[in-house]
Amino acid sequence: MAESLRIGIAGLGTVGAGVLRILQTHGDDIARRAGRAISVSAINARDSKKKRDIDISKYRWLADPIAMASDPQIDVVVELIGGDEGVARELVEKSLKAKKHVVTANKALLAKHGLALAKLAEDNGVSLNFEASVAGGIPIIKALREGFAGNKISGIFGILNGTCNYILSEMRTTKRDFAEVLKEAQVKGYAEVDPTFDVDGIDAAHKLTILSALAYGVKPDFGAVDITGIRKITSRDIEFADELGYRVKLLGIARDIGGRIAQSLEPCLVPIDSALGSVEGVFNAVFVEGDFIDRAMLEGRGAGQGPTASAVMADLIDLARGYQLPPFGIPTKDLKSAKWAGPEDIVSSQYIHLIVTDEPGVIADVSAILRDFNISIESMLQRGRDPGQPVSVVITTHDCSLKAIRGAAEKIGKLKAIAQAPTILRIEQF
Amino acid sequence: MAESLRIGIAGLGTVGAGVLRILQTHGDDIARRAGRAISVSAINARDSKKKRDIDISKYRWLADPIAMASDPQIDVVVELIGGDEGVARELVEKSLKAKKHVVTANKALLAKHGLALAKLAEDNGVSLNFEASVAGGIPIIKALREGFAGNKISGIFGILNGTCNYILSEMRTTKRDFAEVLKEAQVKGYAEVDPTFDVDGIDAAHKLTILSALAYGVKPDFGAVDITGIRKITSRDIEFADELGYRVKLLGIARDIGGRIAQSLEPCLVPIDSALGSVEGVFNAVFVEGDFIDRAMLEGRGAGQGPTASAVMADLIDLARGYQLPPFGIPTKDLKSAKWAGPEDIVSSQYIHLIVTDEPGVIADVSAILRDFNISIESMLQRGRDPGQPVSVVITTHDCSLKAIRGAAEKIGKLKAIAQAPTILRIEQF
Repeated sequence: MAESLRIGIAGLGTVGAGVLRILQTHGDDIARRAGRAISVSAINARDSKKKRDIDISKYRWLADPIAMASDPQIDVVVELIGGDEGVARELVEKSLKAKKHVVTANKALLAKHGLALAKLAEDNGVSLNFEASVAGGIPIIKALREGFAGNKISGIFGILNGTCNYILSEMRTTKRDFAEVLKEAQVKGYAEVDPTFDVDGIDAAHKLTILSALAYGVKPDFGAVDITGIRKITSRDIEFADELGYRVKLLGIARDIGGRIAQSLEPCLVPIDSALGSVEGVFNAVFVEGDFIDRAMLEGRGAGQGPTASAVMADLIDLARGYQLPPFGIPTKDLKSAKWAGPEDIVSSQYIHLIVTDEPGVIADVSAILRDFNISIESMLQRGRDPGQPVSVVITTHDCSLKAIRGAAEKIGKLKAIAQAPTILRIEQF
Repeated sequence: MAESLRIGIAGLGTVGAGVLRILQTHGDDIARRAGRAISVSAINARDSKKKRDIDISKYRWLADPIAMASDPQIDVVVELIGGDEGVARELVEKSLKAKKHVVTANKALLAKHGLALAKLAEDNGVSLNFEASVAGGIPIIKALREGFAGNKISGIFGILNGTCNYILSEMRTTKRDFAEVLKEAQVKGYAEVDPTFDVDGIDAAHKLTILSALAYGVKPDFGAVDITGIRKITSRDIEFADELGYRVKLLGIARDIGGRIAQSLEPCLVPIDSALGSVEGVFNAVFVEGDFIDRAMLEGRGAGQGPTASAVMADLIDLARGYQLPPFGIPTKDLKSAKWAGPEDIVSSQYIHLIVTDEPGVIADVSAILRDFNISIESMLQRGRDPGQPVSVVITTHDCSLKAIRGAAEKIGKLKAIAQAPTILRIEQF
């Protein structure tokens, strides 16, 4: 058997410990599959003394993660530190420059600096693999870069953040509001103490940026994702959606609209019995449309020790097998600068939730505004009111452009009888 | 750019034409992705004059497919002839011996001769790729061989035959019986004139054999699949299942039961709202359980020109990129001879459908037989009878072994008041 592939692991949080656990459990099987052993040459974490549920005493400890970049006994640096700047970025850059392969789960780093890092990997003849950066246990990077490589992709849609999907599922089944469910999720460890990255859609937008670059062969551009989180979704919205036959899901969507690409990350309504509508709790799912496959869906656990470490291991096994390919599937020089779609290009039906204080006149006003923006109403719902109290009015529209609905919403929000800015949610039919 | 990868395509049916279509449509994109062009060096089919919806005039025509094996202008032979013997087998064997890579969609060939062919590929330092042999557009072979390679797999379950899934879905939604729906499917082209391979489960069992070998690292053994088709399923069964909260699905199941592997292909009851329960029509889905990923599911079109040709193309792109790995994921010498589970090892709850001609006494007799086999009853259903007419009695059981239920069913079938052999269906909870 060939010499082992020697890895250095920087970061021993949940995922790093998981990688060690897989190697300790399945080292021999993996060697058979990879054609050679994968050996841990060195490890590093912030705290060497921290109590861990895995034995790390037999591994060489490096006090400085950056030292891995220049360590002659390391072939692959596994970056599991996180963050799009600082140590993680420095380590990845220096490792690639030192002609070491890099495997990382760092979606923020790739979404922000993916192009430059891919170029660096390419210039140095090494790999930059990141299966673990998107959707944990689901091999979606491999599917896009390899499995579906014979297709022109026209759409990729996903539930990419387990925390948000868990919160939305809980809100629905327990009829509680966002703040309360978030608090509980934090206690259970399903949401971070600072939940911003998750609930504001940033984490999922990082992932969408990566998927979109792979699917369309374009330079990753996090700035071109239109991001809306789930903070403003109320249990009311979820109930109305249910009544209309939909689930509220935080969806990443990257769609090819006649050569322009639309990237959005926002809560949407999807049919209850659709493939994405039935994905509940902490699960992730990615739906791909291609001209030859038609459509396919991959579903699984999007986070957690096992699934994420399994994805890191898949990248390492590819490297041990000698398989290298460009980080974004094609050489960086061939990655196009995307033409991004504008709000006038993006067309769908919409859900509008209004809190109305003075009903009779306002519906006429709202209808007139929608008509002025050329938006036609599909249905209108209103739920029991106490006299004098604000009432919820829900309108669904036929297809209209994002530009039109946003324009209309702004005008509607200024009506005297409208208590707060309307909630606008895209309705996506798959 | 490197020299092109030169392929010969033997067989220009649906899939072969699809491969040409992909190359004609996306040749340049594929060259960018693969790092070099994939060029068609020669083609062959039974009839060169047949009217085709794709232009084949520019390709070199070989009258004899076997000539591809010795053609110096071919690097990869794409075998799309089909059948587990005859020309297909000869072509694959001769091509591998001549040190040419082989890409095939031929599940029967692999299920029957996979081990010998893998050995031949290995001995000659070439690849034998077969993503298209299982579940069309779903990259399940790649997922098992690469994406999930860090896991010990404990279960793989799949809807692997679109024809059967279509028939069962149609039987449910239109409340018609098997024979009628089959006839319609034949007219529509969803089922073959001779439907045996599909409806008797043989096609799906070929696929399960391949998946099981990959998942468990064992020698593929088609003979070790316990096969039951869908001919005996009545619309009655489907209605009863619905009433109990289940769908009837033809499932391939390969499960690791304490080191013994159980391979079965049979109609089962799965919960309506489960991942596999909601897969309808011609779609396929494969559900994988592994110790680190927990569980993942891949769903998509299991057959048809586009999806199957897309899978062939993925294999070709891997080869163009220089990626080679053992056909079954590990060297053939490491493939174990599986210990197969016996009917005493396989435990699940069961659905029993009895046609009873003389009720009062017989229920006591049936109950006694079940008790004697240590099988406890979970529920019993009976539907309206005309006096003197046979009546359907449906019993669901708690967990029992396959051995016990088969023994009991045989005895029950011999009771005077039982009109025909009972229908026994496994209930699978995911």
